Amino acid sequence: MRRLRMGMIGGGPGAFIGPVHRFAAELDREIELVAGVFSSDPDRSRSAAAQYLIDPARAYGSLDEMFAAEKAREDGIDFVSVVTPNHNHLPSARAALAAGLPVMTDKPLTATLAEAQELAGLVASAGLPFGVTFTYTGYPLVREMRERIAAGAIGTLRKVVVEYPQGWLSQPAEGKQAEWRVDPAQAGAGGCIGDIGVHAFNLAEFVTGQKVKCLLADLAAVVPNRALDDDCAVLLRFANGARGVLLASQIEVGELNGLRIRCYGDKGGMNWKQEEPNSFLQHQADGRTEVVRAGDASLGPLAASFTRTPGGHPEGYLEAFANIYRDFAAKLRGEDAPCLLGIAEGLRGMAFIDTAVRASNAEAGWVDLNV
Amino acid sequence: MRRLRMGMIGGGPGAFIGPVHRFAAELDREIELVAGVFSSDPDRSRSAAAQYLIDPARAYGSLDEMFAAEKAREDGIDFVSVVTPNHNHLPSARAALAAGLPVMTDKPLTATLAEAQELAGLVASAGLPFGVTFTYTGYPLVREMRERIAAGAIGTLRKVVVEYPQGWLSQPAEGKQAEWRVDPAQAGAGGCIGDIGVHAFNLAEFVTGQKVKCLLADLAAVVPNRALDDDCAVLLRFANGARGVLLASQIEVGELNGLRIRCYGDKGGMNWKQEEPNSFLQHQADGRTEVVRAGDASLGPLAASFTRTPGGHPEGYLEAFANIYRDFAAKLRGEDAPCLLGIAEGLRGMAFIDTAVRASNAEAGWVDLNV
Amino acid sequence: MRRLRMGMIGGGPGAFIGPVHRFAAELDREIELVAGVFSSDPDRSRSAAAQYLIDPARAYGSLDEMFAAEKAREDGIDFVSVVTPNHNHLPSARAALAAGLPVMTDKPLTATLAEAQELAGLVASAGLPFGVTFTYTGYPLVREMRERIAAGAIGTLRKVVVEYPQGWLSQPAEGKQAEWRVDPAQAGAGGCIGDIGVHAFNLAEFVTGQKVKCLLADLAAVVPNRALDDDCAVLLRFANGARGVLLASQIEVGELNGLRIRCYGDKGGMNWKQEEPNSFLQHQADGRTEVVRAGDASLGPLAASFTRTPGGHPEGYLEAFANIYRDFAAKLRGEDAPCLLGIAEGLRGMAFIDTAVRASNAEAGWVDLNV
Amino acid sequence: MRRLRMGMIGGGPGAFIGPVHRFAAELDREIELVAGVFSSDPDRSRSAAAQYLIDPARAYGSLDEMFAAEKAREDGIDFVSVVTPNHNHLPSARAALAAGLPVMTDKPLTATLAEAQELAGLVASAGLPFGVTFTYTGYPLVREMRERIAAGAIGTLRKVVVEYPQGWLSQPAEGKQAEWRVDPAQAGAGGCIGDIGVHAFNLAEFVTGQKVKCLLADLAAVVPNRALDDDCAVLLRFANGARGVLLASQIEVGELNGLRIRCYGDKGGMNWKQEEPNSFLQHQADGRTEVVRAGDASLGPLAASFTRTPGGHPEGYLEAFANIYRDFAAKLRGEDAPCLLGIAEGLRGMAFIDTAVRASNAEAGWVDLNV
Repeated sequence: MRRLRMGMIGGGPGAFIGPVHRFAAELDREIELVAGVFSSDPDRSRSAAAQYLIDPARAYGSLDEMFAAEKAREDGIDFVSVVTPNHNHLPSARAALAAGLPVMTDKPLTATLAEAQELAGLVASAGLPFGVTFTYTGYPLVREMRERIAAGAIGTLRKVVVEYPQGWLSQPAEGKQAEWRVDPAQAGAGGCIGDIGVHAFNLAEFVTGQKVKCLLADLAAVVPNRALDDDCAVLLRFANGARGVLLASQIEVGELNGLRIRCYGDKGGMNWKQEEPNSFLQHQADGRTEVVRAGDASLGPLAASFTRTPGGHPEGYLEAFANIYRDFAAKLRGEDAPCLLGIAEGLRGMAFIDTAVRASNAEAGWVDLNV
Repeated sequence: MRRLRMGMIGGGPGAFIGPVHRFAAELDREIELVAGVFSSDPDRSRSAAAQYLIDPARAYGSLDEMFAAEKAREDGIDFVSVVTPNHNHLPSARAALAAGLPVMTDKPLTATLAEAQELAGLVASAGLPFGVTFTYTGYPLVREMRERIAAGAIGTLRKVVVEYPQGWLSQPAEGKQAEWRVDPAQAGAGGCIGDIGVHAFNLAEFVTGQKVKCLLADLAAVVPNRALDDDCAVLLRFANGARGVLLASQIEVGELNGLRIRCYGDKGGMNWKQEEPNSFLQHQADGRTEVVRAGDASLGPLAASFTRTPGGHPEGYLEAFANIYRDFAAKLRGEDAPCLLGIAEGLRGMAFIDTAVRASNAEAGWVDLNV
Repeated sequence: MRRLRMGMIGGGPGAFIGPVHRFAAELDREIELVAGVFSSDPDRSRSAAAQYLIDPARAYGSLDEMFAAEKAREDGIDFVSVVTPNHNHLPSARAALAAGLPVMTDKPLTATLAEAQELAGLVASAGLPFGVTFTYTGYPLVREMRERIAAGAIGTLRKVVVEYPQGWLSQPAEGKQAEWRVDPAQAGAGGCIGDIGVHAFNLAEFVTGQKVKCLLADLAAVVPNRALDDDCAVLLRFANGARGVLLASQIEVGELNGLRIRCYGDKGGMNWKQEEPNSFLQHQADGRTEVVRAGDASLGPLAASFTRTPGGHPEGYLEAFANIYRDFAAKLRGEDAPCLLGIAEGLRGMAFIDTAVRASNAEAGWVDLNV
Repeated sequence: MRRLRMGMIGGGPGAFIGPVHRFAAELDREIELVAGVFSSDPDRSRSAAAQYLIDPARAYGSLDEMFAAEKAREDGIDFVSVVTPNHNHLPSARAALAAGLPVMTDKPLTATLAEAQELAGLVASAGLPFGVTFTYTGYPLVREMRERIAAGAIGTLRKVVVEYPQGWLSQPAEGKQAEWRVDPAQAGAGGCIGDIGVHAFNLAEFVTGQKVKCLLADLAAVVPNRALDDDCAVLLRFANGARGVLLASQIEVGELNGLRIRCYGDKGGMNWKQEEPNSFLQHQADGRTEVVRAGDASLGPLAASFTRTPGGHPEGYLEAFANIYRDFAAKLRGEDAPCLLGIAEGLRGMAFIDTAVRASNAEAGWVDLNV
């Protein structure tokens, strides 16, 4: 078995998520970053190569250049990772698929639902592996909750509350990370709903195994002169009738990255928080509450297999992200990757964003989520 | 100064909130329970007297009997506390006011908005002190948050999230406490929204100093065959434009009494949880976070005056409740009681319940809260 | 059944623990404060009576006066509570016992071990109920831990860590509460060890059901010019061979009243913190961890009986203290009070303080705890 | 700048800490694992190579073989990491230094103090970079505490409590990880004191900037038939007179990896826990308490430089470990690495273990820590 070779699209100087993809892809040593179009400016692309400590000759200024050069090498890239702002996801993925390369892309899938639908078609025709980094599904205890719920631990799902509070955009945006996220031309139709709301949506479906059927959305741009939403409240109805509430905000001063989810059925409940990701609470209808912790003997083999250290040695965001890449590597090697999310979940996420934005703008009440 | 004498209406055998009112009223020794119509069944009323260790001769079988007998005594009651199920609040208060007695009543004010409006008229004509036990406003740190926010600690209010998860009604109701709460004839139009949602609503207005202008409500009876709502999601808009979310549920298995509130302005944020009531987090826009704790030298004189023990000696629910009675005693003595809530807040609470139930039933979208 | 009548000794203007005893004694309405020698200065004693809202005629200037006057009344006091600084515990208790009155006293039992031994003799001869308010044994979940451990929940005890960090004496003492505690003439031989170390010692024996056999102590006065210890580290060995560590400090800046205990046996462990007293963690050797919460159906009848409100309605320090008085009232009525601590535990506490101070002064290594 | 090439000694099949060193070394891409003597059994060594995904030709069966073969390559290793059980630290390091290679070794430095002293001499003569992975000093917030304390944030140090509870050895040892740790031939003179006590000791000196002057130790083997200590209580006195308590245990059922430290001076206090490593509490003498969080703007540049993700994206054990390797890489490149710990701290750690074991065995009371 050899290490898989990754080419990165995006992730140039000043990027946050590019380095994260690099950490994550390489953590388990199954993948190696070897090339990239880190920027459309060749000089900036090369300067990123120096930062990543890869061969500067493999830092390209365009996709075409990378695909041609890498194809010509014996040790050329095996797949690409797309880590650009949202509006470049589709063109990047389209070109990669056309070049015969599997694609891993950051979320949300694309900038618009139409783009997502186009991409879904391309992925279907290409028949190549395609993954989306819904990071928080990589946490071992999130996977454990999913398995326990699927096995009946809380009975029939009745209620989900998923919250994603942040505060870093509570003031007018400054800096590269903030600026593109509040610009419709780069981010797409959704601001907060597309940046983090989609994570919450995805997490709710992933953990519960239930699909959202319809929603009622109330989105707003709270910071003056902001073009995109920065605060979202969305009511959800799941296919089985369960009720849900999804809150996401980027103007809650002092909140960092407070994604959390609580699920309740007729027999129990579960409660997990991203900022303390190595445990969750499990409630039973008889009044007992268990703290389930990473490393516990009671964890199923799936969660255990995505943990690298014994209990009490906290794993965090990068390790969760690495688990997504481990799934993708397994997929590329033709192995089983039951937790890997791809075009279907990416498309559902875009349908969620699109429906929420439209429903909120129109004050339309309950609207079906069609996808 | 002598102890004020309280007569209780309700609170008979099996009651939860009756004993709580007794604890709370007497804790600071300014008030003494001396009489009561604990039940409309004279025998049950007398057996409650034995439990409360009061003179059995002062355990009455009807309001008329109590008012007549107590009026005839030199040491007769100074006021009544109404602790019955909701549908008896109005008749009890009406009779007491007619007998010239000040009234403290449990929340919600009445069973219906129409009753509340009638009671508001009676209170206005009577010109007697009238209080409502919105318990959670009694916590010293809640009062401190209110004062800090009024003084500008978080800037202009933008967002409030108030949640009140419980799980004790996740199964079909059993027992006295559960049964009346799910019976429209006793509870009124609201189930969960009237039992705990109204606390959350009141707390949001109390802490922020802002009034709710309109709301969008989605209520449901999740447990099969239940006549009243047991799970509520309500979106709020405050008078100053701030956005709010109010969640209340009694079917979230494993949740006990998880009332919590987070408020954010353009300059900061605050976060408090009832189950750990002796501290709150205060966030500033510069990224600093302070843990404000009961007993801290930084607390204002108001919060300090409602604390009985040094920091680290946890005070809880009964002490918070006692603070409400301390306010009421002050009011009866003609002193200042800036945190005492009365008919106005009681009426707003009923308007909230009524509007939420109507809006949800009609799927009416945003509806103004008129009161 | 009538309310028992309590006379207080100590608790005059500026006192902390006097009002706490009043709250605690009266909370369940089984006891009523009716008289007191709140100060040896008759004017100050009377002014305290006004604060407590009791009949000023029953605020006395001396013990003799109180005992004579109360004996002469039909509704005279049934027992006394001693809430003075330590050096007055013995004379107060001695006089009360001589007057035929049961005694409840604050901890530590006396100022010195010799006094404690004298008092033990007096109590034995008098044959009257005698209680000591080791407050923290009043918490329902502490009692639950004791019962579970006695029933084998953690197997054979191996290890106890009990810590009691405070910070309020980190600077030179100011104010009535601080000043007497650092004065050997009033506090006795122990400073921190006698004020809070003794609580930790008592809690360890209470929870585990094991007696300390010997100890090694390292005490110091950290704040310059302080006559008594303010920081203590004590190693313990229990009768069954289990090892223990007891830490107490009053100079740990920022710590409030952080008493906590963790116990481990060969089959499990438990962990409780006074500042969040309504739950504890229970670990099992198979890796499972349960959060045991007040109100849970899994609690035994003893803990349940000492809880006044449903789960999630936090009870705190005053309620725990009230449970001690409820025990004492039961004892006075001739009922069972299995958790009431008295002269034996008070004497053990004094032996602990005395041994620790002597052992530390002499740097004597391991010293037996004889009592 | 090129990636530094690491050869591993130890870390064969079943190892825990070998893979951790690999993760840590490679996380920032400044270092690459390329070779190793993963086991003294060549077949096992090669099978480890497959696990690590390195060239099997560079998996050697002996140190001599590795040093010779790597020296002959243009791309030979730049340094070695020693991750064997303790008794192999000295021979491994000795051979590597003799081969002219810098050495990074796991803690404790060696199995015995005599070995450590020998190694110190070798390191001094060799003049090569030498690091010891005291992992917990890699946490950014630990470094921030160290800097704040050095800058006077808590005033003059008075008290340190450092605790390291674990429970995984509460039963007779089973499995590779457990077995060597309880075997004096592999672990050395210390069991728990050497495995985790030394981390606690090192952390206390690192954070406070004060050196331990003398100690009093009470160590025991609690689990029957265990040759080495598994439970430790050590009292400390620092050079400036500050008092300390160090607790370490591996028999506290249910505890995972609960390293924590609290430090108090005359002006403030700090409190950090390894299991929630991304924040600490800072107390001030005026009663204010701040939660300092990773990513806060108030952090100094040092802590900030060792953080890879924004606040709220939890970093954990592997990232802390990687920070140690980042220091080492800086050292190898001739850059500044102010937090890198080496032979001096390694030797102090061994002196601590040796002194504690001797002092405890002899029940010698306070013993100086000479090094």
